[in-house]
Amino acid sequence: MKVSIIGVTGYSGIELVRLLLQHPKVTIVSIHSHSQNGQQINDYLPHLKQLLDLPLEPIDPADIMKRAELVFFATPSGISKEIATAFVDADFPVIDLSGDFRLKGEGQYEKWYKNTGAPVDILKNSHYGLADFYSKPSSTLIANPGCYATGALLSLAPLVEQKMIETDSIIVDAKSGLSGAGKNLSESTHFVNANENMTLYKMNSHQHIPEIMQQLQRWDENIPAIQFSTSLIPVTRGIFITSYARSKKKLTQTELWENYQTFYQDMPFIRVQNKNVYPNLRQVIGSNFCDIGVAYNEVTSIITVVTVLDNLVKGAAGQAVHNLNHLAGWPETTGLNLVPIYP
Amino acid sequence: MKVSIIGVTGYSGIELVRLLLQHPKVTIVSIHSHSQNGQQINDYLPHLKQLLDLPLEPIDPADIMKRAELVFFATPSGISKEIATAFVDADFPVIDLSGDFRLKGEGQYEKWYKNTGAPVDILKNSHYGLADFYSKPSSTLIANPGCYATGALLSLAPLVEQKMIETDSIIVDAKSGLSGAGKNLSESTHFVNANENMTLYKMNSHQHIPEIMQQLQRWDENIPAIQFSTSLIPVTRGIFITSYARSKKKLTQTELWENYQTFYQDMPFIRVQNKNVYPNLRQVIGSNFCDIGVAYNEVTSIITVVTVLDNLVKGAAGQAVHNLNHLAGWPETTGLNLVPIYP
Amino acid sequence: MKVSIIGVTGYSGIELVRLLLQHPKVTIVSIHSHSQNGQQINDYLPHLKQLLDLPLEPIDPADIMKRAELVFFATPSGISKEIATAFVDADFPVIDLSGDFRLKGEGQYEKWYKNTGAPVDILKNSHYGLADFYSKPSSTLIANPGCYATGALLSLAPLVEQKMIETDSIIVDAKSGLSGAGKNLSESTHFVNANENMTLYKMNSHQHIPEIMQQLQRWDENIPAIQFSTSLIPVTRGIFITSYARSKKKLTQTELWENYQTFYQDMPFIRVQNKNVYPNLRQVIGSNFCDIGVAYNEVTSIITVVTVLDNLVKGAAGQAVHNLNHLAGWPETTGLNLVPIYP
Amino acid sequence: MKVSIIGVTGYSGIELVRLLLQHPKVTIVSIHSHSQNGQQINDYLPHLKQLLDLPLEPIDPADIMKRAELVFFATPSGISKEIATAFVDADFPVIDLSGDFRLKGEGQYEKWYKNTGAPVDILKNSHYGLADFYSKPSSTLIANPGCYATGALLSLAPLVEQKMIETDSIIVDAKSGLSGAGKNLSESTHFVNANENMTLYKMNSHQHIPEIMQQLQRWDENIPAIQFSTSLIPVTRGIFITSYARSKKKLTQTELWENYQTFYQDMPFIRVQNKNVYPNLRQVIGSNFCDIGVAYNEVTSIITVVTVLDNLVKGAAGQAVHNLNHLAGWPETTGLNLVPIYP
Repeated sequence: MKVSIIGVTGYSGIELVRLLLQHPKVTIVSIHSHSQNGQQINDYLPHLKQLLDLPLEPIDPADIMKRAELVFFATPSGISKEIATAFVDADFPVIDLSGDFRLKGEGQYEKWYKNTGAPVDILKNSHYGLADFYSKPSSTLIANPGCYATGALLSLAPLVEQKMIETDSIIVDAKSGLSGAGKNLSESTHFVNANENMTLYKMNSHQHIPEIMQQLQRWDENIPAIQFSTSLIPVTRGIFITSYARSKKKLTQTELWENYQTFYQDMPFIRVQNKNVYPNLRQVIGSNFCDIGVAYNEVTSIITVVTVLDNLVKGAAGQAVHNLNHLAGWPETTGLNLVPIYP
Repeated sequence: MKVSIIGVTGYSGIELVRLLLQHPKVTIVSIHSHSQNGQQINDYLPHLKQLLDLPLEPIDPADIMKRAELVFFATPSGISKEIATAFVDADFPVIDLSGDFRLKGEGQYEKWYKNTGAPVDILKNSHYGLADFYSKPSSTLIANPGCYATGALLSLAPLVEQKMIETDSIIVDAKSGLSGAGKNLSESTHFVNANENMTLYKMNSHQHIPEIMQQLQRWDENIPAIQFSTSLIPVTRGIFITSYARSKKKLTQTELWENYQTFYQDMPFIRVQNKNVYPNLRQVIGSNFCDIGVAYNEVTSIITVVTVLDNLVKGAAGQAVHNLNHLAGWPETTGLNLVPIYP
Repeated sequence: MKVSIIGVTGYSGIELVRLLLQHPKVTIVSIHSHSQNGQQINDYLPHLKQLLDLPLEPIDPADIMKRAELVFFATPSGISKEIATAFVDADFPVIDLSGDFRLKGEGQYEKWYKNTGAPVDILKNSHYGLADFYSKPSSTLIANPGCYATGALLSLAPLVEQKMIETDSIIVDAKSGLSGAGKNLSESTHFVNANENMTLYKMNSHQHIPEIMQQLQRWDENIPAIQFSTSLIPVTRGIFITSYARSKKKLTQTELWENYQTFYQDMPFIRVQNKNVYPNLRQVIGSNFCDIGVAYNEVTSIITVVTVLDNLVKGAAGQAVHNLNHLAGWPETTGLNLVPIYP
Repeated sequence: MKVSIIGVTGYSGIELVRLLLQHPKVTIVSIHSHSQNGQQINDYLPHLKQLLDLPLEPIDPADIMKRAELVFFATPSGISKEIATAFVDADFPVIDLSGDFRLKGEGQYEKWYKNTGAPVDILKNSHYGLADFYSKPSSTLIANPGCYATGALLSLAPLVEQKMIETDSIIVDAKSGLSGAGKNLSESTHFVNANENMTLYKMNSHQHIPEIMQQLQRWDENIPAIQFSTSLIPVTRGIFITSYARSKKKLTQTELWENYQTFYQDMPFIRVQNKNVYPNLRQVIGSNFCDIGVAYNEVTSIITVVTVLDNLVKGAAGQAVHNLNHLAGWPETTGLNLVPIYP
C-alpha cells in the first residue's frame, strides 16, 4: 500500500517513518511538512540518511490522492480539522494522530482545545481507533487515540467494563517523558529546566480528560468523572500511569490479577505482568506493547494499576499502524513485532 | 557545639557534613564509619578536599561522648537501635536519621522493617522530630522523620488537622530520586536500569506508611488508613508528591489556597506557592524548603496537593539540623539559609 | 540457521537477542548463562515477554553443537578462552564478542587483560572481524572487535591506510555511555555517581589500545603508538569519539571530506555526513550505523574526526550479526536494516 | 558593599544572586533585566521566594550609580559593550561576565564574535580577571574570563608558563553541560535533543579560542596556536576538559604531579588531586573549585590533564565574586567557601 505522511517532521511523524520503513506491506510515497519544504528529509534528520531519501513537500490533497492510497496526519491538533476535509469528502482513507476527530460531544473540542472544532458531520462519522478493542473500523476516517488516553483506558478497562469499582473513585496519576510535550521550543522543554526535574502541568485541565471520559462512559455510563493529573518526568520517551480505584467488593490479589490476565489474554500488545510484578517504563520503549501490573490493598480496598507504554509507539505511531492493519484487513501485528530497546 | 557523625559516608551523612560545615555554631570533631576506617574522609570523598580533613574512625561511644556534645546517627535502619543505647543511657543527645526510633506502636517496627525493634523504654522516650511543628523537644533522643513521611505529612497537615477531608479518601503518589534508595549497589540503582526509567517499588508495603499514619492519627484519630505508593524517577535528589483527598464540603480554589497560606505562614521552611502555581522539583534542591501548591477540582471534589522537597536536606540532613537548632535553643533557621541550586 | 547464545543476560547478549529475533534467516534455539539457570528468560527480562520464551540453560558444548549450527559468546573477557576451545576443536563456528581472541601478539593479552591468554594455536587461527573491511572470513572463529576499537579504527582508517598523517600524532578522545561498562554493580555505575557526571577511567591503560594498534599497524606499520583516553558520559548507549591527527601536507576542508566520502562509499553501515556537518550521538542509537564527520583546521594542520556509534549494536551485537552474515555468505545487510530510534 | 546586577535572569545572573546572598559583605540593592521588567524576581524564579524580594527594573546607569557601589553585567555578549560605557566613563566599578571586554587584539572581537567591538580606549583599560593569578586589579573594569577559557588556562598554565611542552602540540578537548549554552531556546537545547546525546559544536570556531591564546601567549609568546574542541554533554552544569600536550623531555608521573602540586599550592580554589587520581565532574558542582589530575604517558610522551569546574561558579559567577574580593581588597575566599553539592 502506498501511503503519504503529513506532518512528518514532528516526533510522531518521525516515529511513523521508522515503523513504516519496517512494515512489509507499506511504501512511503510522499512526505509533507509546512515548515521545511524543499529539503530532503535526511538532510534535516540525519538519522534517516540512506534510509529515506524523499523531499519534504507542501500539502496538496489532490496530488496526494493521486499518488497514495492512504494518508496519515501526524500534525498538531488544529491542522487536520482544516485539511483532512478534502480527503474525507473524497472517501480517501485518513488516519489522524491529532485530537481533532476524537471528541463526539457537542462543544467538547471547543471547551478543552480552546478552538473551533471539525465539521459536525465529519466528526460524527469518525472512528475512535482504540486499536486493541476492535477489528473492523466503521469509517475510513480513523481518529487515533491520545497517548495518555490510551494508557489510562487500558489501565482501567477491566475495572470499568466489568463494573468492579466505585464509579466516582477513579484517580489517574500519569507521568510522561518530554517527547510527549512535542517539538515546540518552550521554557519547560529546555534541557536545563526539564533535566533533574519533575513538574505537574495542566492541573485539572488536560485535553485528554474528555476523551478518556467518552470511552469510559461507553463501557459504563455511570462513571461520573475522573481525577486525572499529568506530570513531566526527565525521560525522552514513555508514559507511566498509576491508576487508583476503590473496589466494590473485597477481593484477593490473585483474583484481581487473574481477572486482568483473562481480560487481556487475546490482545497481543497488552502484556499483563506476572503476579506481584509491576512493569518498569524501559521494558516497552521502542515497542508497541502496553505492560500492566495490578495490586489490591486489603487495608484500603484500593486497586492500584501500573501501566507503561511508549508514547510515540503505542501512544501514537504504533497504534496508527495497528489501525492501518485493521483498515487494510491485515493481521493486526503486521509490521509491529518490535522488540523493546533494552537497555 | 562539638558534634560527631556516625555513618558519615552514606548520602545523609555526606549531606550533614555539607550543612554543618556552613553552620555558624557547630564544629565537627569526629566522624565514624563501619566500612572505611583509617582513611581520611577527603581521600574517600574528594569533593571534601581542603574542607574537612578528618580520619574515618571506628565507633566508640565512650570516646565520642568525651570529645563531642551531641552525636548524629546517619546510619541505615537497624544500626542505631543497637549502638545508640549507650548514648541514651548516659543522657547524651542523639539525633537519629534512621527509622529505628520513630514507631511507637507495639510490633510496628517488627512488622514493617522485618527486624526486632529498639528497646521499648527508649522508644517510648524518643521525640519524633517533625521540625516545623514543634520548638521544644520532649527528649534528647530525636527521631528524625523519614523523607517520604516528611513530604506526605506536610502535604496533608492542613487537611487532616482541620478535618477538611473524607477520612478514608487519602491517596499519596510519591516519587523519589535515586539518592533516596541509598548507596547500596543493586540492579535497580545501576545507571543503565535507572536512567530513562521509572519504577514503582514496595507496592503497599513501604516502611514509611506506619510513620505517616502515626502522625496523621495524632492530628485526627479518625483517619483509618492511607493509600501510599512510591516510585523511582531518574533524578539524583528530590521527592515529588502528588496527594489526593476528597473534600468534605464544596470549596473554591481561593478558599483552599488561602487556607494553606494561613496554615503555613509562620513556618519559614514551607513555602506555599502563589495561587494556581505548582512547584517543580528543581526549585528546592540544595535547600531546606518544602514547596507546596494546591488545587481544588470542582467536578470531582478532589483536592490535589503538589509537594516537593530535597530528600537529603528537608528529608534528612536539613531537618536534622533543624532539630539540632531546636535542641540547642538556637533560632530555627540557624545555618539553614540555603539558597536552592538553580539551575 | 540455528544459533545458540552463551552469556545471554549481559548487555551484548540481550542486544543480540533483539537483533536475531528480527533476522530473517536465524532462529535462536538455546540460550545459556552461568548465573540464572533454570529461569525462563522473559521472567528475568520482562521486556522479552511474548517474544522469546526459552529457559536459561547451563553451558554444555556437546549438547549445544547437537542443537545449533553456530554459537555466539557474549560473555565477559576471560570466559570464552576457556569454554570456546571445545567448539573450535570441533570446527564448530564461533563468534566471540569478548576480547579473548583478538590480540595476536605474544604476551599482549597477559599485559593488558592481566590474565593468561587463550591457547596460542587457537589465537593464531582466529579472524579479527572488523566487518566493514572484509567479506570472506579466514576462519570459523571470529573475534568480534571491541566497541571503542571499532570506533577508533573507523575514524582513523582513511588517514592511516592512505598515510595522510604524521605517524606519531594520533590522539583519540573517546567517550562511552554506561552500558559500555557492563552489568556489574560498582560505585562508578551507581546512578547517583554516574548521573550528571563525567569521569576519565583507565588512564593510559585501556585494554582496547593494543587491539587498535594491531589493526593500525596492519594498515601502516610505521604508526608507533597512539594516545587514547576513555571517559564515561551519562547516557545509556553510545560511543562518541573525537580523533585528532596532524596532516602531513596542507589540505582543504573539501579535499578531506571528499577523501572520506570516497573511502567509505561502498560500506553500507558507514555514513560520512554532509560537508561541515558533524554527527550527534543519538542519530545512530539502535542501528548498526557508524556516522562520521571530518574537519581540517588550517591554522594548526590538525584533522578532527567525529565518530559516533551504538556500542551495543555496531560496537557489539550488530557487528556480530554482520560477521555472521559474512560467515554464512548472506548479503551483509541481512537483518541489519535497523532504523535508529530517534528521538 | 551595595551592588546591582544587570542581566539577572540569565543563568550566570541567577547564580550570582545565589552567591551574593551568602556573601557576608555584600547587599544586592537592585536587579535589572531587559525582558521581565516590573515583575518581582521571585514570581519569575520561584526558587528565590523568601530569599530575594526585589522587582526587576529597567537599566538606568545614573540611577544605578546612585544606589549601588559596583555593578555586575551578567548579560550575553554584545550588551555590556554598549551599556557599560556610562559606568566606565564615571569610573564606576564594573565586573563584566560577558566576552565584550576580554580581547585586546585589534579586530579579534569582530572576527570571533561577528560583531563590532567595544570602544578601543575602554578595551585597552580593562583588566582580564583570571582570578587565581593576580590579587590587585589594574582597573575597575574587570573582564571576567569565559568558562571554557578558565578551564583550559588552568589546565595548561604550569606546562606553558614553565615551557615544559612542545609549543605546537596543545590539543584541548572540552565538554560542557547545557547551562553553558545559555537560556535561549533552540533545537540543540530542547531536552529531547540534548538528553542521551553528545554533540560537537562550533568546530574550530569557538569564540573562547582567541581568549585562551591571548593569555597563553602572555605566559609563553612562542605558543603559535591551539587545537580546541567543544562538545555538549547531557548534564546541567559543569565543564570537563581533557588537555593533551607533548612533553619536551622525558618525565615521570611523579615529577609531573609534583610540579602541578607545587605550582598550585597557594591557590585556594585549585585542588590538584592525589597522584594517579583524576577528578570527576560532580565533585566540584556548586563550588568555586577547579580540580585537576595529570598523567604522563611514557610511550607517547603525551601529558594528559583532566580538569573539572562548575561553569556557572568557577566559570562565571564564582570567579566574578573572586574578582570582587580582589577589587574590594577582601580575603579572596570571602563568601566563596562553598561545599560542593555531592551527591
